[in-house]
Amino acid sequence: MNFRQKLENIINKNNSLLCIGLDPDPAKLPDSILEKNEPLFEFNKAIIDATYNLVCAYKPNSAFYEAQGAKGIEQLKKTIDYIKKQFPDIPVILDAKRGDIASTSEHYAKFAFDYLNADAITVNPYLGLDAIEPFLKRTDKGIIILCRTSNPSAKDFQDLTIGNELLYIIVAKKIIEWNNTHNNCLMVIGATYPKELKIIRALAPKMFFLVPGIGVQGGDLEQTLSAGLRTDKSGLIIHTSRSIIYASSGTNFAQKAKEEALKLRNQINLYRK
Amino acid sequence: MNFRQKLENIINKNNSLLCIGLDPDPAKLPDSILEKNEPLFEFNKAIIDATYNLVCAYKPNSAFYEAQGAKGIEQLKKTIDYIKKQFPDIPVILDAKRGDIASTSEHYAKFAFDYLNADAITVNPYLGLDAIEPFLKRTDKGIIILCRTSNPSAKDFQDLTIGNELLYIIVAKKIIEWNNTHNNCLMVIGATYPKELKIIRALAPKMFFLVPGIGVQGGDLEQTLSAGLRTDKSGLIIHTSRSIIYASSGTNFAQKAKEEALKLRNQINLYRK
Repeated sequence: MNFRQKLENIINKNNSLLCIGLDPDPAKLPDSILEKNEPLFEFNKAIIDATYNLVCAYKPNSAFYEAQGAKGIEQLKKTIDYIKKQFPDIPVILDAKRGDIASTSEHYAKFAFDYLNADAITVNPYLGLDAIEPFLKRTDKGIIILCRTSNPSAKDFQDLTIGNELLYIIVAKKIIEWNNTHNNCLMVIGATYPKELKIIRALAPKMFFLVPGIGVQGGDLEQTLSAGLRTDKSGLIIHTSRSIIYASSGTNFAQKAKEEALKLRNQINLYRK
Repeated sequence: MNFRQKLENIINKNNSLLCIGLDPDPAKLPDSILEKNEPLFEFNKAIIDATYNLVCAYKPNSAFYEAQGAKGIEQLKKTIDYIKKQFPDIPVILDAKRGDIASTSEHYAKFAFDYLNADAITVNPYLGLDAIEPFLKRTDKGIIILCRTSNPSAKDFQDLTIGNELLYIIVAKKIIEWNNTHNNCLMVIGATYPKELKIIRALAPKMFFLVPGIGVQGGDLEQTLSAGLRTDKSGLIIHTSRSIIYASSGTNFAQKAKEEALKLRNQINLYRK
């Protein structure tokens, strides 16, 4: 089963477009977790056990594990192994934003797909097609290419005008073209830019978009869903992390995460009727 | 001492603009190395011991270590620790091409600078300034931002025309602006694009450029140096990996790497007189 089928299935099963970011930061973890031998993994496991029936995907961000060195990478692998074993129908997106010349991108693809066994990866388009091809040729995986990022400085380059169009639109059109050939592309479009999201939805009525920026970054849920949902009321992976996983810093953190996840999943579904 | 001072010092001491890429690929390592417990580290150590007086920097590419998982990351750290202990005046550039929203880039900076203790990192500009600031604020480190990459598809986006200028030139001007504020920026410009290198040198007469693409990728050394050297005959970090580290696949690989490194360093110096 390829990534897209897996994603469609879990969206139906869990009735959810919510993706939870597994981004454990030692500075924010509860003391009860920090005492443990593998705190990143133990934190993730508790979050996963509390939310597995509320999500369409989990998205660990590689940076949080790399910051802890080899032991962090081990816990990233252990987290993904745990999801694969306990909840094999939930896809795992490795947020890594990689991109390098082809002979190097091959090795990043090995990291994401062969070592970690992730179902999808985020990649950066700046180097162009040949840098992304080592990912694209993994036809069973999801290749999620940055288009319009959620951060304030996104405009620095992504809003530059080329002819009559902005750079992010040129990038979107390239991604659509690559998807026509490989059938495994998605795009990242920040919830903080609903106008841009609407423009890209019009260009790509059937594609899936990964949409970060709801929650701490300030993206508005109603505007996002109104701008980005497909006509079938699906097609978005609504990603949030901090507002769910750090909803409480006490021993009840997993229970609070579950409550926040349930609330957000249901809020999203109000707009999908 | 900051990265730039460290770089200037070693260029003078070793009379070299050559940077060797430590990109160990198990598919290409000699059998005598593959038998060992930590083959990536043992290979790197042999290359370093043979070439330490011929280089201005070593540049391990994170992808090659990540592909081997946590054990690979351990060997990356061990490699950098070895350089720091044995040859503390040689700067280490982590080739990682990272870039994410600020709160995530903080963790990538921790990986590169706190965990690995690298002296510099390569980063991707697509997300704009706020994604790069967590790196820029490390004023003792070198922040090497992609401008014109060495791969054929670089033109896909980097050659788009914005007003009267191409995207890579807009990016170069932004990097120059960021360098004026932070004084720790360099740019990546591929040796495969000497025309573009010349244009950027005219814009940034004093900056250092990291120039990959000599060797297997086909960049021409004479054109590169003619286009990119500063008036003081310095200002370039000429990077190559495969044509040196895989010059031989036999037990004499380190000796052959030394011969190739010596040859290339001396060829470069012919144009610096």
